[in-house]
Parts: sequence; C-alpha cells; structure tokens
Amino acid sequence: MKLVCSQSELSSSLQLVSRAVASRPTHPVLANVLLTADAGTGSISLTGFDLNLGIQTSIPATVTTSGEITLPARLFGEIVSRLSSDSPITLSCAPDSEQVELTSQSGSFQMRGMPAEDFPDLPLEQSGNPIRLQADALVKGLRATLFASSGDEAKQLLTGVHLQLHGNTLECAATDGHRLAVLQLENAAASKGADQASTDRQGMDGQGLDGQAVDQETAAQDEEPFAVTVPARSLRELERLLSARHSSEPLSLFSDRGQVVVHWADQLLTSRTLDGIYPNYRQLIPASFTRRIVVERRPLLAALERVAVLADQQNNVVKISVEAELGKLLIQADGGDVGSGSEAVAAEISGDDLQIAFNVRYLLDGLKAMTGDQLAMSCNAPTTPVVLTPIDESRFTYLVMPVQVRQ
Amino acid sequence: MKLVCSQSELSSSLQLVSRAVASRPTHPVLANVLLTADAGTGSISLTGFDLNLGIQTSIPATVTTSGEITLPARLFGEIVSRLSSDSPITLSCAPDSEQVELTSQSGSFQMRGMPAEDFPDLPLEQSGNPIRLQADALVKGLRATLFASSGDEAKQLLTGVHLQLHGNTLECAATDGHRLAVLQLENAAASKGADQASTDRQGMDGQGLDGQAVDQETAAQDEEPFAVTVPARSLRELERLLSARHSSEPLSLFSDRGQVVVHWADQLLTSRTLDGIYPNYRQLIPASFTRRIVVERRPLLAALERVAVLADQQNNVVKISVEAELGKLLIQADGGDVGSGSEAVAAEISGDDLQIAFNVRYLLDGLKAMTGDQLAMSCNAPTTPVVLTPIDESRFTYLVMPVQVRQ
Repeated sequence: MKLVCSQSELSSSLQLVSRAVASRPTHPVLANVLLTADAGTGSISLTGFDLNLGIQTSIPATVTTSGEITLPARLFGEIVSRLSSDSPITLSCAPDSEQVELTSQSGSFQMRGMPAEDFPDLPLEQSGNPIRLQADALVKGLRATLFASSGDEAKQLLTGVHLQLHGNTLECAATDGHRLAVLQLENAAASKGADQASTDRQGMDGQGLDGQAVDQETAAQDEEPFAVTVPARSLRELERLLSARHSSEPLSLFSDRGQVVVHWADQLLTSRTLDGIYPNYRQLIPASFTRRIVVERRPLLAALERVAVLADQQNNVVKISVEAELGKLLIQADGGDVGSGSEAVAAEISGDDLQIAFNVRYLLDGLKAMTGDQLAMSCNAPTTPVVLTPIDESRFTYLVMPVQVRQ
Repeated sequence: MKLVCSQSELSSSLQLVSRAVASRPTHPVLANVLLTADAGTGSISLTGFDLNLGIQTSIPATVTTSGEITLPARLFGEIVSRLSSDSPITLSCAPDSEQVELTSQSGSFQMRGMPAEDFPDLPLEQSGNPIRLQADALVKGLRATLFASSGDEAKQLLTGVHLQLHGNTLECAATDGHRLAVLQLENAAASKGADQASTDRQGMDGQGLDGQAVDQETAAQDEEPFAVTVPARSLRELERLLSARHSSEPLSLFSDRGQVVVHWADQLLTSRTLDGIYPNYRQLIPASFTRRIVVERRPLLAALERVAVLADQQNNVVKISVEAELGKLLIQADGGDVGSGSEAVAAEISGDDLQIAFNVRYLLDGLKAMTGDQLAMSCNAPTTPVVLTPIDESRFTYLVMPVQVRQ
C-alpha cells in the first residue's frame, strides 16, 4: 500500500469515523480504523465500527499501490491532526507487513497496525428500496426529538427515535415514558436522482409521492409506510455527520434485517435498529383540551430556568398556577430548607384556573427544542398530559406528563 | 438589611468571590458568601473564604438599611446569573432573621442564609509596609511561572511560586524539582499613590526605588528585599482576578504572619503563604555552557507535539540529537509496540554534537509559556541541566533536567 493525500482531508475524515470507534473496545482491532486504498478509483476509504454503529467515508488520494490495513484510531488521528496542512501526507505499508510509515515534510512516524482481515465487515445490506430524504429535514427532525429519548438502556425501544415516512412526510418521534416529542416534516422525501433539494409539494395528501416519481424505488413507498426505530446514540452521530457539511444532495436510507444504512455524499453510516413495535404514541395525545394558554417562549424559558435553581435542590418539581383572570402563569418551586422561588409570566388564557405541577427539566428540554416566539400550552386537568406546541410550527408536538403533588 | 443593586455587577462579583468558596466545605458556613451592606458608603461587599484563600469585592448599591448575612454561594450565584440585566435586584432581610428575599422585575426568591457572625474573619493583617506592583507585570510573572510549580501537596514549598522584589525588579520563580521557570520583571514596582502605570526607569541598578519615592512605605524596600512563597492555587485566582479587568492602578501587597493580602481597585485577595526557605534555585543554573542552539520556537513546539503523541504512549521521553554539521535537531520518540516517530528541526548550533533526552511534557510547557519567534537552548552534557531562553526576552529562564536513558 502506498498513497499520498491531503492532511486536512485525512484529519477531518479520521475525526469523523473515530466517532464510531469504541472507547473501550471488546477486541483490540475495534480500537482501530480500517484504511483501504484503491488505485483504481484514486481514493482511500476510512471506516470506524463498534459493532453497533459504523461510519465510513472516502477522500481522494494519489494511490500508487492499493492495499488495506487497520491503524489505532486515536494515535493515527492525533498524529495527523498535529501535522501541518501545508504539506501532503504519504502513507506506506509493505505487503504482509503491519508496520505503516507516515511521512510528512518534517518527520516520519511508524505505527503498528493490524491486518484488515481482522476488522469486522460493516453490515452493508442494501437490498430493498431505499428511502431518500432531504438531509436538512432529517437534521431538523432529529434535533427536535433526540433529547426526549430515554438514556436508560433497560428501556430498550425508548432509547431510540422512531422514524416514519408516510408519503413524503417524515415523522420523527421519541419518548422516555414521561414526555414525548414528535415532529412532522412535509416534503422531507427526495426523488431518486435529484441532485439538489427538490421538494415534492404534491405529496401532502398521504398518497405518497406524486406520479412523477422517477423510478420504482420511490414508487415502492406508496405500498407500505416506512418505519424504523434507531438508537439515539447512532442518530446523534448521524445528526453530527449531516450537520458538518452543507450539501443539498439527498440521503438514501436502507433498512433491512435489524440494520439501517445511510448513504450521503461520500459518507456512510450503519447502525443496528431497535426491534419491536414502537408504542402507539398518538393515543397518548388528548383529542381535545379544556384550556389553552398562549405564552411568550423566551420569558417562560427564562422564568423556568430561575425557579429550576430551587426546584433542582429537591425534586425538580415546579408548580404552575394558571390564573385566567389575572392573565398570567405563576410558577413556583420549593427548595426545602434552602429556599423557594416564584415567577410570574403573562399569558393569554382560555379556560378556567388550574394548578398543575411538572418536572421542570422536561419543560425546559421542550422549550429549548422549540423555535419561534410564542407557544400554546393545552391541558385538561392536573393529572392529564399537557401538550406544548409552537405557534409558528404546529407540526411539532411536545407532550409532558404532569407530576402529582400533595398539596 | 435592605438594598438595591445592579444584576450584572452583583452577578460578576458573586462569580469572582465564589472562586474562594470551598467545593467541599468543612463547615456549612464556608459554602456561603458573606454579604455586607453599608448605608454609609452606599456599597455592599461580598466575601468568599475557604480558610486558605479569601476574595472580597465591593460594588455600589442603594442601601436603605445596613446589615450583614451569609448566603449559599452556589444557589445565590445561580439565581442572580439567570436574572435579567434589565432590572435592578432588591435584597432584604429582617433583623435577626436568616431569611433573605431577593426581588426582581418578574419574580421573588427566598433564600435561607446563616448569621454573619458564623463567618470566619478574613486575615486582613495589613501591618508593615505594602509593596506596590504593576498589576500587568505580576500577571506576566505568574503566567510565566505558575505552570512549573508542583501539583504534589507533599512537596510543600514547591507547590507555590516564589516572589521577590529587589529594588523595583520583581522576580517570580517556580520549580517542581524537575524544571524551573524564572522571570525577572524590571520596573514592576509602582510608587505609592500612583494612579496610573508609572514605571520607574531609574531603579534598575538594584538600589531600589529612585529618590522620588513618595512615602516611607516604599522607601522601606531599600532596606530588605521582599520575598514570599504563595500557593499556586491562590496565585491562579490572583492572576484570574487581575486579568479580568483592565486597570492601570497598581496593587498593594502586604505580607505578615503567614499571610499575604493583595489590594487592587475595590478587590482584595488574601492567602496563607508557604513557610520555609525557598530553594536557592540560582545555584541550579550552570554558569557557562559548551553548546548553544538557536531554533525557531513554533516549529520546535509543533514537532515536539507530534512526537509527544508517541512519547505519551510509554514514558514521555523524547531524545534530541544535536547535529551541528547538519544544522538540525533530530527529535525522536519511541512508543514501544505502538510505533515511533521522528522529526527534524533546523537549528543554528555552536558546539559539538550531543544526544540528550527529556520528558517531552516539560519541554512543551516551557515552550508554550514563552513568547517570541526564536529561543536559545544552552547545554553542556546529557546529564546536566539545559536552559531555554527566548531570544527577545532574556529575562525568562526555563531550566529542565534531562532524563537519563539507557541506549
């Protein structure tokens, strides 16, 4: 193997794929990245894989001799990141050797690798029809929901985000059992072969893509809605990967046999999926509400952050008194021996007065995930779910279960 | 007690004094800050004190009723920092009550404090003559030396920085037994009463301040050189405090009975000192050298950072071959099984070839603390101390003990 490539491209690619390298690998080779140099295509590919999550990317290189080897991800990344971007990097490895020499302008480094054969194959099942999504739509969906997934591994399916495609509307949902975040993104699907953001404004009737779908793959979406639950950890890396670059190119998502594979530009991410039937979260959302409170988002967020200082001293509980006549929410927290706090926020209230309590962290998470100036808080009783919706983006629904407090 | 003050001033003052509040206080009141409101001066003072380090500052306030109380530093700071800077803050506390009410535009908070009588007195011994220093000179001296002090509490005196004033030259020195950093700052002393940076260019003869010293206090410096060793932890806070503001006002430093007290603007820092006779570090510095190597600082730093990736894998050792004829330094590190690295850096070498080894961390620390483009490395043998000096700032001396390696 012998190749010459750019320091900056190699360094950023190593950083990217290293996100999928286990910090405590169960096998030595899993601490490595796989480097494959192909003289035919004039490129090298880099792969990190922790058996759950895999990330692969490729960059152009002048490859004199094809070959493949694995190298310690951290060491390789740290050396490359410290090299000057002014001069190219040469990597070479004799046949059947595990010793790789890295040469730059001022110095040379020897690294001991491990054979590429020892590196597990990425699960690149790409049978079936891929769905094609706008990358920026998926990023938006992930940012709006990832935070609501559970961090408790015992909660299995709830440690993921549920992705569904109806027609060309993408729905992202996550819940940890205490709160639920759902974002619907219209026109998230992209036509196969589109090389720039081509949104399909005729597909909003739930009938799938319009009749102009350019091939059979996308047409297949008409038949059965696509749905998959992917671990939040993998999706956080996908969000990072998709956010790191600006490209209007749509991504392709394959899902088969417990794996998803996402292709985007010259990058690829694989992840296991979470098996099982995701809870029917729609049934959690009340059909009607007796009260609706419209409030400025930022003042509410700031007031909650202040009383949270006291709520956090004890049990994270804030009590909200909905005072219809005064046109305000009174927010209170009791920090026990330490102290207490109260804040008032102006609100437009329709419906009767109400006293309701929440885990302040859940409220804060939801308000931070929203955009826009105003939000509506819809509720019925102190024991039934409350739904928060931004006024300007009605396709985002954030449901929070209240906390029951002894008065 | 009742007062009104600005949110931003109160918040930044709380942040400042909280640096001296113990994270694991040995007594509950030490988790608090002392708040003293004085209607006479129209100001409030805030104090944090962990029995070693104390920080006090004051800000203007409209004080209706004088009084004092202690409040939990973290809770108080977190609430105040989250309040809007648009509206003032009212603090009130009934006589003999420990309940403080904080009121702002939108809300109110009750905090339980503890009586001011329980708070230990700051050791504000200010007897004797203070020395007066330019704040920016002291900051420069601390930045150049703090890193070389020992982090090992068992090393007692070496956990501090030694400050000496000869005439109006301030000398800062720190060593952990393996390396030594010394910076001499001329004209660091300020005349008492100077309200702006008045440097004294006549005092460089070591005879102390010039004849225009405005009072007896500074004149006293002629008699005995001032010297004190202060814990690095306290000096890091002093450096932070002095760097946070731009003021040409000189600081006053009192030292008496195992304590130093620094006054600067409306801020005050006290610290215990380290007792004992600081090592006579001057005798460690060789009087003459057989080799002198002049090298560009940044390329040397970059090369060392790269080989450090490998050196860190094993024992942090880098070997430097001084190759006089080739006019370069060859820097090598062996990471054992992991790999190895070598870098070459151009150098102007006078003297014979030499092989010498170092802990790369010590070299990196020194090179990072230096400024300027070039440095001189002076040495004699592989077992004797090496001295690094920036070419443009000959008053900084960084001495490193080499490591003996089996060849």
